[in-house]
Amino acid sequence: METKLTSETIYEGKIFRVSKDQVILDDQMVVQRDIVHHHGGVGVLAISDNKLLFVKQYRYAIAQTTLEIPAGKLEKGENPYDSALRELEEESGYTCKQLHRLFEIYSTPGFCSEKLYIYYTNELIKVEQPRAMDCDERIELVWYTLDEALSKIQTAEIVDAKTIIAIQFAKLHETELCQKEPKQ
Amino acid sequence: METKLTSETIYEGKIFRVSKDQVILDDQMVVQRDIVHHHGGVGVLAISDNKLLFVKQYRYAIAQTTLEIPAGKLEKGENPYDSALRELEEESGYTCKQLHRLFEIYSTPGFCSEKLYIYYTNELIKVEQPRAMDCDERIELVWYTLDEALSKIQTAEIVDAKTIIAIQFAKLHETELCQKEPKQ
Repeated sequence: METKLTSETIYEGKIFRVSKDQVILDDQMVVQRDIVHHHGGVGVLAISDNKLLFVKQYRYAIAQTTLEIPAGKLEKGENPYDSALRELEEESGYTCKQLHRLFEIYSTPGFCSEKLYIYYTNELIKVEQPRAMDCDERIELVWYTLDEALSKIQTAEIVDAKTIIAIQFAKLHETELCQKEPKQ
Repeated sequence: METKLTSETIYEGKIFRVSKDQVILDDQMVVQRDIVHHHGGVGVLAISDNKLLFVKQYRYAIAQTTLEIPAGKLEKGENPYDSALRELEEESGYTCKQLHRLFEIYSTPGFCSEKLYIYYTNELIKVEQPRAMDCDERIELVWYTLDEALSKIQTAEIVDAKTIIAIQFAKLHETELCQKEPKQ
């Protein structure tokens, strides 16, 4: 255990807050922990006609274009399921009747509170007038087969942690996830 | 693409630096990006006698105890391979003759530059007097079979992204990784 003694907010931004905390360890040692506080996010593994849906976008933080599953951050007070449906629609123009929860993960628990909820659907439904995405998002949709996606992990064309987890999961459950008749 | 116009450092800590940047998108829209700059880290999937090595530790950022593969952050100027060997030894008391690189991933590329290098070994060698770990680390070693580890993902006892990636990789390559004679 580590028990908080003091906490000072260093920065409060739109996406995260940073605090500098003094904590006491079980053996009474006092140390400093710098923490990035984040509301959490969602991601959706969406499969249709045996192809996986990816969002291609430039990520300024890592100065490169990534391929990621449709994803986004939780709004304050929003539940993860609704958030996942919203992000799927905003980013891809698809919705679905039901999402299945696959994972709850922490992206980098050493210094950041971000929790990600990963869902799955293979029943995408096109939305005629989808909700608009954030005004600073510029994305492109791409579809890959499971084997193409796996190969893009090996070639480091896919480098995003949550996306790799989703693809590996799809491969481990290929018979259940990729053989059904998906599109409506 | 997003091109940097200005960048202001908000906080410079031991683990990460935070900057507030003004960037211009391809269509000339100017937006703000808050970025967590991190040197990157390493993790090691270590298998011995068909068991996977995990580090149990309290993670203050998420207020819970986690099970993670041995891991740590890159020191300034340190190369990832040396860092992985060092962290493995510091955290577990083991070393090995050779690490195999499995992945280069980004933990949360939406706002953070942290890149993680994941390695693999199945040839652990006990170190008599291992290098000491960081003074604020309190860890315990645990070993699980691959199936135990997979089941701990399902029960959310394992929630760390890089660790889930390593375990799912091990399952996808079970015949190559888990059948050899490991311990020296």
